[in-house]
Amino acid sequence: MTGILSPLGKFTMSFIDPLLQNDTFLRALKRRRTEHTPVWLMRQAGRYLPEYRAVRKKAGSFMALAKNPDLATEVTMQPLDRYDLDAAILFSDILTVPDAMGLGLYFEEGEGPKFERPLDNEKDILELQVPDMNKLHYVFDAVTQIRKTLNGRVPLIGFSGSPWTLACYMVKGASSKDYRTIKSMLYHRPDLMNHILRINTVAVAAYLNAQIDAGAQAVMLFDSWGGVLADGAYQSFSLDYMREVLRLVKTEKNGIQIPSIVFTKGGGIWIDEIADIGADAIGLDWTVNLGRARAQIGHKVALQGNLDPMALFGSPEQIRHQVQLSIKSFGQRAEGYGHIFNLGHGISQFTDPESVSVLVDAVHEFSRLTPG
Amino acid sequence: MTGILSPLGKFTMSFIDPLLQNDTFLRALKRRRTEHTPVWLMRQAGRYLPEYRAVRKKAGSFMALAKNPDLATEVTMQPLDRYDLDAAILFSDILTVPDAMGLGLYFEEGEGPKFERPLDNEKDILELQVPDMNKLHYVFDAVTQIRKTLNGRVPLIGFSGSPWTLACYMVKGASSKDYRTIKSMLYHRPDLMNHILRINTVAVAAYLNAQIDAGAQAVMLFDSWGGVLADGAYQSFSLDYMREVLRLVKTEKNGIQIPSIVFTKGGGIWIDEIADIGADAIGLDWTVNLGRARAQIGHKVALQGNLDPMALFGSPEQIRHQVQLSIKSFGQRAEGYGHIFNLGHGISQFTDPESVSVLVDAVHEFSRLTPG
Repeated sequence: MTGILSPLGKFTMSFIDPLLQNDTFLRALKRRRTEHTPVWLMRQAGRYLPEYRAVRKKAGSFMALAKNPDLATEVTMQPLDRYDLDAAILFSDILTVPDAMGLGLYFEEGEGPKFERPLDNEKDILELQVPDMNKLHYVFDAVTQIRKTLNGRVPLIGFSGSPWTLACYMVKGASSKDYRTIKSMLYHRPDLMNHILRINTVAVAAYLNAQIDAGAQAVMLFDSWGGVLADGAYQSFSLDYMREVLRLVKTEKNGIQIPSIVFTKGGGIWIDEIADIGADAIGLDWTVNLGRARAQIGHKVALQGNLDPMALFGSPEQIRHQVQLSIKSFGQRAEGYGHIFNLGHGISQFTDPESVSVLVDAVHEFSRLTPG
Repeated sequence: MTGILSPLGKFTMSFIDPLLQNDTFLRALKRRRTEHTPVWLMRQAGRYLPEYRAVRKKAGSFMALAKNPDLATEVTMQPLDRYDLDAAILFSDILTVPDAMGLGLYFEEGEGPKFERPLDNEKDILELQVPDMNKLHYVFDAVTQIRKTLNGRVPLIGFSGSPWTLACYMVKGASSKDYRTIKSMLYHRPDLMNHILRINTVAVAAYLNAQIDAGAQAVMLFDSWGGVLADGAYQSFSLDYMREVLRLVKTEKNGIQIPSIVFTKGGGIWIDEIADIGADAIGLDWTVNLGRARAQIGHKVALQGNLDPMALFGSPEQIRHQVQLSIKSFGQRAEGYGHIFNLGHGISQFTDPESVSVLVDAVHEFSRLTPG
């Protein structure tokens, strides 16, 4: 429990949910001492699990699965039934918001997400609107149902793509190899670029707040493509808008804290600045040295990451060794520091499910040996 | 002219080539004062130039062009005839060395380079040999011919892919999106990975030395894929081998200095360590803040970079503004610091050749206004 003196001088209390059976993840996000390092994996409910593939096949398409709260709940729970994970994450896609804006999200087999009606002219861009959140009720229904099914086992993470990352997909559909379309707009028509980003910012904040209302206990912004931006452009076109999203998103609900995580893939060079935008934790990819990042900014925010998903293709001994290096690199789980173990990117669909068992158990085993 | 007291106590002199009409690039590499900031562009002889496309068509294929010293000389000279560039770079490919090892380099239209006989089994890996440099005589012939044609106008840069980057292509041919094949080997069979890298290291050093013998006046290592490695793995599997290459490569020829540049794309987070491996300059991609990089390591090595190639899709005024920001960010060209203006990656084939004129002239104009 953390005491906060509000600006009005009124002493308010905000809590980590006392009804949770395992609050390790939320405690680590708030940089409080934990018995072990909590662990969850990006895309933990995914194609590497045969039971996921079975449900996905039954649903017919990725979006049919994501839009069916029963099935979304079922696949969200699958990795928790197999592994001793410390958090659940809503099964959904980062691009639901532009889909609700009317752009028509779809997936082609073996390719990334695309839009049927990408933004390819000035008129469409200027007419873009924050979508009615009712169009996303399937997401909020799933959140509520997952919370009910979890029944306090571990906390549930809600999420969205960052304003910039959504824009990468919205402009001319699937992003090109060199981001030529969107970067041409950024350098040549920054006014149009900023217009899209302002709409996205309001939409993403409303979307995360609705997930929190529905039961999400922490929220994460996936800035998957922030790392393709130049220094300077990153700050103006991605970071500043994420700061604004965080300003608009609730940090507590009924006196219970709702921590936030921001993850810019490829953003290791900017962690000093990312640590200042108001998130409780920042996600790190595998290029970042965990010990150095902790020394640099570990007292300001918690750190989440950052094993290379490809390390899961090693032998069990090799996986355990990599986990040990990572836990050692972060160091003691002292008060004022927080580490949430994760991969540096989503788990590969080709991962052996057994390797995930080895990983999760090794995180718990080695971190218990490193006194908090 | 720089005086060096050799370990034997003998006072030796090493020079920047006194016969060069424009030695700005070499002086900046050696962190000496220059009248203006020198500029060249990665892939400056390339598809964005109509005169290049004409020669490429005549040659029939990329490799036919690269293997013909007359044509390679012709396209190397093309951008120098159009723009006021301060250096020429050999027209070739980063993968000529594994091609000479017998792997069969080829290019498919619209795709990256591939090998006909990639390394996909242990036997082939263990039988890998440093190639006979005679198989690469077409490269050295081109170097000699380009030097002759340049006739002292500007210096000529030789280059190679880094040991790790070559390996990325050699193992199972074209690299997969998530580098699964090569990273699986790295995590699961580091012995095989290191075997390939040791061979590549010796081969790359011999290759660069032969380019120097043929007339290259500076050399550059392109570590295009170092940035996909995890912290720790980068140091062991890319950086350490580049350090060894640099140890084996000549730093002068007939008393004339041969400076070296190392460029790890996506390596901005590791510039402290890259600055320590013995190169004269490090290449930076656009994610790096030039001013901060200079403050961090600018007294140890020169810096080369780092405009986003996509900035060339802005208007002339916007391009000039980006150049100005960059020149200002680096600051004064004081003794002990060196900046070579470049892009943060190869120029896009869709660039308007006029935009390159604007860029090159703006670099010279603005840097002359910033006293050295």
